[in-house]
This record gives sequence, C-alpha cells and structure tokens, in this order.
Amino acid sequence: MMDCVFCKIKDGQLPSHKVYEDSKTLAFLDINPVTPGHCLVVPKIHSATIFEIELPDLMAVSATAKKVAIAVKNAFQAEGVNILQANGAAAFQSVTHFHFHVIPRWGNDGKGFDWKLVRGDSAQLKLNVERILAVIR
Amino acid sequence: MMDCVFCKIKDGQLPSHKVYEDSKTLAFLDINPVTPGHCLVVPKIHSATIFEIELPDLMAVSATAKKVAIAVKNAFQAEGVNILQANGAAAFQSVTHFHFHVIPRWGNDGKGFDWKLVRGDSAQLKLNVERILAVIR
Repeated sequence: MMDCVFCKIKDGQLPSHKVYEDSKTLAFLDINPVTPGHCLVVPKIHSATIFEIELPDLMAVSATAKKVAIAVKNAFQAEGVNILQANGAAAFQSVTHFHFHVIPRWGNDGKGFDWKLVRGDSAQLKLNVERILAVIR
Repeated sequence: MMDCVFCKIKDGQLPSHKVYEDSKTLAFLDINPVTPGHCLVVPKIHSATIFEIELPDLMAVSATAKKVAIAVKNAFQAEGVNILQANGAAAFQSVTHFHFHVIPRWGNDGKGFDWKLVRGDSAQLKLNVERILAVIR
C-alpha cells in the first residue's frame, strides 16, 4: 500500500534490520526498541488491523512470532517475552499495517505495565459476557 | 494439567464467563479486566508459553483472538483493541497456560503503556540483528 512504511520495507524501498523472512511474513528490529532485540513481525500482504487480516496471513505471522520469540529469548538470554499487537490509535497503533511486537523482557528491565490487577464487579462481568455473546460469530 | 487454573476452567472444574468455544480454543472474560470486555483466549491443550505451544494450537488461538477482537469492538463500541501475550514472570505472565489478552481500548481509558518511543542506537541495532540471525530457525 502506498505510503505504508512497512510495505516500503517489504518492497525494499526503505531499509530495515531484517531477522526473518518467508513467503508470507517479514520480521525486523523495531527501530524504537523497548528492550534490546525488540522485533516486529508483519504480513507481506497489507492489512491495517486484526479486524481485517485474512486468516492465512494471521496464522503465518503467528508462526513467525513464535520463531522470533524463541530466537530473541536465546539470542539475548531474555527471562521472558511479551507479544503485543495494537489496533487503532486508541490502542497505541502507530503504523497502520498489522504487526506483532516481540519484546524480550527481564525482571529488572524497568518496563512494566501501568495495569494493576483489579477484580471486576461480578454483576458487570455477567452483563459484559452477554454483550459479547450477542455479537460473536 | 493439574493445578492449572485455565485447565480447570476448560474442564468445568472452575467457573468462567465464557464468550466462545471451539474444538481447540476457549475464550472467557478476564476477571481482572483492564477495561470492560477484556477477554482471554486459551488453547484447550495445555502449553505454558509461546516457546512451547504447538503450531496448530497457536493458529487456533490466533483465529479465535481475531473473532473475539471483532466481537468486543462491536459489543462495546471500542475505539481500538490490544492483543497482549506474556511469557515468563519477567514478562508479567501470571497463569502459566498460554493466553492472549484481548483488551478493548478507548482514547480516554487512562490505560497507557509506560513505554515511550526512544530511537535505538544504530550500531547497537546492527549488533542485535546479528545475534538474532545467529540463532533463528
């Protein structure tokens, strides 16, 4: 897609630090790494979000994310790995081409989540499940 | 697996707010929701992390995560959705049974990431890609 940074990387119009490529996917370093070894995994066929990506591409990026997760864990002796994927500006998506972040983690890396465990209200949870059941296919 | 909370939910030994089930996967509300409609998607076959999960199970949970992402977006009129998956305590994994978080997001939900965009050092990025290339399969 024109003007898509990740499509330009895929087409070789922009450089990247590539770590893996197959027929459907590409993986490269995030140039704004949260931690050393932070990679992105993208489908070669452009889709903006998880809402639109075709299943064969989603399955391919998932399989590549597994490969990259194992590789960064081994390469950097990471203690853990987060997979993160954002859909929409409200979810902190900056490039509108589907991508999995693969982020090596260490107990002392200082990068937490500002999301504390707070138990949901039981009655509200019941209402929420009904709302989802009404629309899921 | 004995003593695994998500295996017990799958086996019906613990209750859950189920939103989807198929032959390989199960999705239910997180009882500690980051935002309303926050769901978890798990494989029925126990694996601890993305490092170990078999590809058919990974593909199945990915496909279910897409379904659930679309459903929560529609059910709650979410502006965005984050997919998050943790491997290891250092990555904030609390239940050691593979799970995708599917988290509805709104621009004003007050739940950010404390991860700022900081450009990586170019020479360091080059070294890091070499480390990954040396081990990726």
